[in-house]
Amino acid sequence: MYQTTQRAWLESLRQTLNPNDLITDPDRLASFSGDETRDLHHLPEAAAFPRSVAQVSAVLRVCSEHCIPVVPRGGGSGVSGGAAAIHGGLVLSLRHLNRIVVLDARNMTVTVEAGMVTGTLQDRLAEKGLRLPPDPGSRDWCQVGGNLAEAAAGPKSVKYGAFRDYVLNLEVVLADGRVIWTGADVRKFACGYNLTHLILGSEGTLGVITKAVFRLVPTAPESVLLRMGFTTLEAATDMICRVFTSGLTPSEVEIVDRDAIALAQPLCNAPADPDLAAYLWIGFDGREADFLMADAERAADLAESIGCADLLFASDPDQVRRLWTYRHRIGPAVIETTPFRDVDLSFPRAALADVVHMVKEVGRRYGFRTAVFGHAGDGNLHVNVLRDALDEAAWQGPVREGIADIYRRVCAMGGTLSGEHGVGCTLTPYLEEALGSTRLVLMAGIKEVFDPQGILNPGKIVETPI
Amino acid sequence: MYQTTQRAWLESLRQTLNPNDLITDPDRLASFSGDETRDLHHLPEAAAFPRSVAQVSAVLRVCSEHCIPVVPRGGGSGVSGGAAAIHGGLVLSLRHLNRIVVLDARNMTVTVEAGMVTGTLQDRLAEKGLRLPPDPGSRDWCQVGGNLAEAAAGPKSVKYGAFRDYVLNLEVVLADGRVIWTGADVRKFACGYNLTHLILGSEGTLGVITKAVFRLVPTAPESVLLRMGFTTLEAATDMICRVFTSGLTPSEVEIVDRDAIALAQPLCNAPADPDLAAYLWIGFDGREADFLMADAERAADLAESIGCADLLFASDPDQVRRLWTYRHRIGPAVIETTPFRDVDLSFPRAALADVVHMVKEVGRRYGFRTAVFGHAGDGNLHVNVLRDALDEAAWQGPVREGIADIYRRVCAMGGTLSGEHGVGCTLTPYLEEALGSTRLVLMAGIKEVFDPQGILNPGKIVETPI
Repeated sequence: MYQTTQRAWLESLRQTLNPNDLITDPDRLASFSGDETRDLHHLPEAAAFPRSVAQVSAVLRVCSEHCIPVVPRGGGSGVSGGAAAIHGGLVLSLRHLNRIVVLDARNMTVTVEAGMVTGTLQDRLAEKGLRLPPDPGSRDWCQVGGNLAEAAAGPKSVKYGAFRDYVLNLEVVLADGRVIWTGADVRKFACGYNLTHLILGSEGTLGVITKAVFRLVPTAPESVLLRMGFTTLEAATDMICRVFTSGLTPSEVEIVDRDAIALAQPLCNAPADPDLAAYLWIGFDGREADFLMADAERAADLAESIGCADLLFASDPDQVRRLWTYRHRIGPAVIETTPFRDVDLSFPRAALADVVHMVKEVGRRYGFRTAVFGHAGDGNLHVNVLRDALDEAAWQGPVREGIADIYRRVCAMGGTLSGEHGVGCTLTPYLEEALGSTRLVLMAGIKEVFDPQGILNPGKIVETPI
Repeated sequence: MYQTTQRAWLESLRQTLNPNDLITDPDRLASFSGDETRDLHHLPEAAAFPRSVAQVSAVLRVCSEHCIPVVPRGGGSGVSGGAAAIHGGLVLSLRHLNRIVVLDARNMTVTVEAGMVTGTLQDRLAEKGLRLPPDPGSRDWCQVGGNLAEAAAGPKSVKYGAFRDYVLNLEVVLADGRVIWTGADVRKFACGYNLTHLILGSEGTLGVITKAVFRLVPTAPESVLLRMGFTTLEAATDMICRVFTSGLTPSEVEIVDRDAIALAQPLCNAPADPDLAAYLWIGFDGREADFLMADAERAADLAESIGCADLLFASDPDQVRRLWTYRHRIGPAVIETTPFRDVDLSFPRAALADVVHMVKEVGRRYGFRTAVFGHAGDGNLHVNVLRDALDEAAWQGPVREGIADIYRRVCAMGGTLSGEHGVGCTLTPYLEEALGSTRLVLMAGIKEVFDPQGILNPGKIVETPI
């Protein structure tokens, strides 16, 4: 255990950074005590805001010399506690590393600093007709480095993949301050172990991402959207599977379940048929409106053949935005209604109905309500476990047991714990049961290669002593 | 160093395997003394042909107990010496593990054993309207496990990515015989370090891949192809870049340079304009012939605006095949003409003309001729260094120095050593200069976590004592 009473490291950091770029005042540190994960508050002893890779490197050298925990922080939009300083120490914010370094339009690649806000990057790329496709809900405040560290994705990943699928190369500062690039700025790399993908999703436990090189794709100016209702989850699942097996490549396949519809209804100013088990949205994007219209017609025919209860179509951008209402308001609706816990499940998409039924059954057994929504085409659902009127004893006891039961059962169904929210500190306790001890031992071994002192984001993914 | 005089391990293997599944006769072992890499012959002491994962595990337990090198082997189609038993020991062939375990058409995934021939798998998938897109030249004899271990790709990777981009999960036998799965059979996985991508491309040095789960895409029954000639490499490079920046997504962007054209001409029964610096092929595939035709027209207009010298178009399958002739005959033409060495370069695609000029300049300086061809859209070229009439001293001396110079220069141009051919034993000596010592130390650390004795494919990627 490192010595919190030793203050020499703070003195060294003061000599390393600009005067305003180190915070130790507890009041000002409060906003760095966690991320968007509920019920998680851990005050660090300091927060640093380096302005260059050299400063990040210097900060890590100091923390390494003094064995101080370092918690890298992007936009703070995580929901698994990845940015929580659960062992104290230093929060290392990347927010000042927020520039595009090179936008190479001819090669269709961009080199960007890790602290750039993802939406800002995407807007700048769009001006050049280029695109980094993943679209997390937090695009306007999350940061590129956080997206990469936490394996973030979003609705469009069903067609375009996650952020990590666009990474050619990463600049990473190691625990001792050394700086490496993990790959090369090339599309095909077959030169030894894939350090790039090892760092991606490692949540700051192996190194601090300071720059990323992405390949880009052209913008898709046109889009069309279908919304359909189904009275059973089985029919919705059938639609999801058949849209892909029919050869279509939708850009979004999103779902909101019955309980989520009921929750969102007051905010949506639009009635929903109470017989519906789920709304499903299927979108298409591309360059040519005619092609998309043909795809949408095929999907609509398929939906009607399966017996969809209610079919709406939009192609005008305003109509498209309105048609997303229920899906886009479900998050805010939950937040306004009740405290909740976020459970991110990933499974083979044909198992969707079974997984939702399982979640509801567990809820009935342990006495909680859930709102279920998310990326049905990828087999990735966000289950919001709602506190409603439950007392603290129920919320800490049976509800936690129920969530553990959901994780256990989804693994037994061929799924896993987390599709795009990382492990952070909230899922670390479930990891051994999900992955098995051999894999955890290998992960701990890798951790030790990169960070022998265990100072990098301790308590996340692997449990190491600090 | 392990004891080659100790024969107890062979006795143990005999008790583990069926009588015909262990070979020790040097005559029969000769066909396992290398892969398709030139000038590389290393006779192992034995070759094993296990028929189940349990037998693979048992073989590794024996070799681990006796500290015997194990060289996993797929179809033997590698060109960087990954399957060469350079330290002797046991060649472990996966050829009997050649079945589809589960073809889940509803989820569009397939679980397949590592020893299945890639083309056989692809043909079986096509019968169901499904596809694993990468198309290596060796599809008819390479195996799935080898493709994954060596980071293989092919022409269609420009649109569809490499084999590794389709892997959801791997079954891997570790050095001590333990069996793990690296991920889950899901499309989105955010549960700790990416062991899947760590094993992919690790060339059997971290574990033996025994099964893979792939996501699949629908077949693309329609295709069109353009072939165009350019009198300068600069114009060809301009075409390559602009086809992508214009928003098109070609399924192939292949090139053959002037020297390769000259070499292939006798086999192709088709004259080529001697003024051409390169032929470029641009293909499109998909479901709708009309859409592809529109894309091909846009590409053709672009080619003409850039000043292409010669434009041919094909859409009928036979015409398409014939139009590929020069590209497809260049490999056989080299083999029939002269001994050669394969150099696989990867770089930002806009650097293509500069890279080819650099290769030719190095050739002139060190006195060798090259045929250059490959996956221009990905910035991935195969440079065949031709022996022609060079004597042994030149072939071993200046030619090797020239190749080292090419590697050095391509790295200085932002490129790297290998795009899709792996490192094997042939590139291991160049790795430190290309990647830097910090990365190699990290790789060696990872190797030690997985294989503390260093028995797995020693001498490949990382230099470890055995």
